[in-house]
Amino acid sequence: MKWVYVSDLSHHVGEAVELRGWVYNARSSGKIRFVLLRDGTGVVQCVVAKGQVSEDVFEKTITLTQESSIIVHGTVRKEDRAPGGYELDCKDVKVLQVAHEYPITPKEHGVEFLADRRHLWLRSSRQVAILRIRHRIVKAIRDFFDGRGFTLVDSPILTPAACEGTSTLFETEYFDLGKAYLTQSGQLYAEAGALALGKVYCFGPTFRAEKSKTRRHLSEFWMVEPEVAFYDLNDNMELAEEFLEYIVQTVLKSSAQELKVLERDTRFLENVQKPLPRITYDEAVEILKKKGIDFEWGNDFGGTDETVISEQFDRPVMVHHYPAKVKAFYMKRDPQNDNLALALDVLAPEGYGEIIGGSQREDSLDALLHRIREHNLPQEAFEWYLDLRRFGSVPHAGFGLGLERTVSWICGLDHVRETVPFPRMIYRITP
Amino acid sequence: MKWVYVSDLSHHVGEAVELRGWVYNARSSGKIRFVLLRDGTGVVQCVVAKGQVSEDVFEKTITLTQESSIIVHGTVRKEDRAPGGYELDCKDVKVLQVAHEYPITPKEHGVEFLADRRHLWLRSSRQVAILRIRHRIVKAIRDFFDGRGFTLVDSPILTPAACEGTSTLFETEYFDLGKAYLTQSGQLYAEAGALALGKVYCFGPTFRAEKSKTRRHLSEFWMVEPEVAFYDLNDNMELAEEFLEYIVQTVLKSSAQELKVLERDTRFLENVQKPLPRITYDEAVEILKKKGIDFEWGNDFGGTDETVISEQFDRPVMVHHYPAKVKAFYMKRDPQNDNLALALDVLAPEGYGEIIGGSQREDSLDALLHRIREHNLPQEAFEWYLDLRRFGSVPHAGFGLGLERTVSWICGLDHVRETVPFPRMIYRITP
Repeated sequence: MKWVYVSDLSHHVGEAVELRGWVYNARSSGKIRFVLLRDGTGVVQCVVAKGQVSEDVFEKTITLTQESSIIVHGTVRKEDRAPGGYELDCKDVKVLQVAHEYPITPKEHGVEFLADRRHLWLRSSRQVAILRIRHRIVKAIRDFFDGRGFTLVDSPILTPAACEGTSTLFETEYFDLGKAYLTQSGQLYAEAGALALGKVYCFGPTFRAEKSKTRRHLSEFWMVEPEVAFYDLNDNMELAEEFLEYIVQTVLKSSAQELKVLERDTRFLENVQKPLPRITYDEAVEILKKKGIDFEWGNDFGGTDETVISEQFDRPVMVHHYPAKVKAFYMKRDPQNDNLALALDVLAPEGYGEIIGGSQREDSLDALLHRIREHNLPQEAFEWYLDLRRFGSVPHAGFGLGLERTVSWICGLDHVRETVPFPRMIYRITP
Repeated sequence: MKWVYVSDLSHHVGEAVELRGWVYNARSSGKIRFVLLRDGTGVVQCVVAKGQVSEDVFEKTITLTQESSIIVHGTVRKEDRAPGGYELDCKDVKVLQVAHEYPITPKEHGVEFLADRRHLWLRSSRQVAILRIRHRIVKAIRDFFDGRGFTLVDSPILTPAACEGTSTLFETEYFDLGKAYLTQSGQLYAEAGALALGKVYCFGPTFRAEKSKTRRHLSEFWMVEPEVAFYDLNDNMELAEEFLEYIVQTVLKSSAQELKVLERDTRFLENVQKPLPRITYDEAVEILKKKGIDFEWGNDFGGTDETVISEQFDRPVMVHHYPAKVKAFYMKRDPQNDNLALALDVLAPEGYGEIIGGSQREDSLDALLHRIREHNLPQEAFEWYLDLRRFGSVPHAGFGLGLERTVSWICGLDHVRETVPFPRMIYRITP
């Protein structure tokens, strides 16, 4: 008997097959028992009819509880009324384990109750749908860059120095070499990669020991960071809009079923096509003022500000030319106005806030040295980074996209904690 | 003038184009200067002839040193004698920055000298070739699993408990929740994923604070770990051999040019096709004894043992059924012999040692509880893992493949430090 997955049933109509999985639900109706089997690729109804299986097997199916593990033999039948379009007429059911008192029932549970049982909660249709979309977003991200000649340059996780202060860093003892810190961004290393390989990206976990307890913050999250030699701010914006269009349109195509499980209204997603609107920081401030928000020029936008700005547009909006003092030391200044940085943020619609942050980088050795002193950063720790401006400096630019915020936005979730298999937050390190 | 990359020159023969990059080498021959330009995608010879460019530009090309950044305009010409098959007849050269005293010259440098300048060393043809092959291996790994219906389930990096003791773990303070540890393996979490999604893999950085100073050890390295519900040891071996064949054959096809740069003898790689030889631990011990090596049954193999065993085969060899006491607590015992674990290691040829380690997992709650007590592990920390055996336990299996050892083997490198952009070892955390 051939073992097949639920997702492949359409290729086996009329055939006798074996399914292996878990009971998602079971109910009886007279001399028929309906067992919903999930195997990780889908859910299918298995029909166990008295007389079609041995008396012993029929009795055993009474004992089947949620998440009991079973192996089922039967014939695949097309059934338009069934959720997946197919049913299985059972010939035999082998019970591997009857699960006693599975804690997550179809009733409502509290968030902390579920989070404590994340290893089991992952089995629910909703979590399966989110993880599958997460996977497709990751794949779309990699395919986008791989298809455009970028080389993957993995940045290190353990770093010797703090990019911008140590207050939000996780630190660890590193053999006899003193302290090491978990990276907050692979960008500085990606810059070295770009000057070696032209177009590169890094994509890995990053860490922030921020004491933030919001629906947008994780202490461990994945970030993809492209970096391109000879790109300026404008090239960077073109790359960002093409990139977002590719991710969203690819996921819309591949994940219609999962988005339906999540009851996602996809109208805003369908709009994610280039060109994306581009506004300056000044224009964004104007929007806030017109909406009666008391905002002082020169500050960074808060979550509410971002929502108000993004609500003016039907797709993600690119905000550029920020005040230099709210941005990082490595961003290049606007040659026309030294108070502005050639920075770029992309704000997602529907209140999901900043999903991309980037800039053209400072390529002048003197200017960069000046910034490092101005920010009281230890020059010695940045000598290698300064070398990139000493030996064949070129204009270059890049950005970072936070994976989990992107998953949260595309899936339409209330909280970023469901976007990752095992979330890490200020108050959660388990399971 | 259209900016193109060196790798795309074949599409622009006879056209006037712009190239942007760095001087790899420059030399003069009478009234002609030859400038080798690299742009991260390849190297091309630019011919600057007196009279074909302005006097001023011709004089400027004299100043060009290694790694100076330039923008070149010219016409693409097919030239069979040139390394890449094309040359550029220059019309104009714009110098962005003349690099003074670039430290890495074509002469031989010591390894520590180069490692201290890793951010620049990455620009050499050899390092570019290795990083490109690394990228293609990563892509082949992901394509293999994505194409077979696996779902990516990223395991967390920050973990609350030590899987097997804390002596080789990096630790950090985690807010007010006590200590957290950097993961050594995502497997336990991948098991939870497999029972939710059927076929999963995780692929991310892992960490070992081992005080090993060998050519095979990094303290930070990437590992891919597939895990499949309802797989046994035999299924696991079939997956492993298909996986290795796919990676190696894909890279051989895509990276002939890079392997040539590395002067890699690819004969052993061409052999990596299934079926791979399978031997038991007992048979491996027999091999050692026949070779006159003093090896006691029950020990684990050392590096030299692995080399001797693998030398008997023309492709990677799978060794299975190890003594349980040298393997991890979560491995299932052989039902025929409780002293043996249903474990699997794959040893690469040519002395590259273990590249895959895996097993069928213990799926019995009672047996696993017994092992946890036997290994003096804190049962409380594993309650979530035990839940996977309480609620719908099924046979399952998986393995881990170390990325950097695989890159080292496929590239034929002497030391694993060149397989990663910024290596982290016991004596190195910089740059």
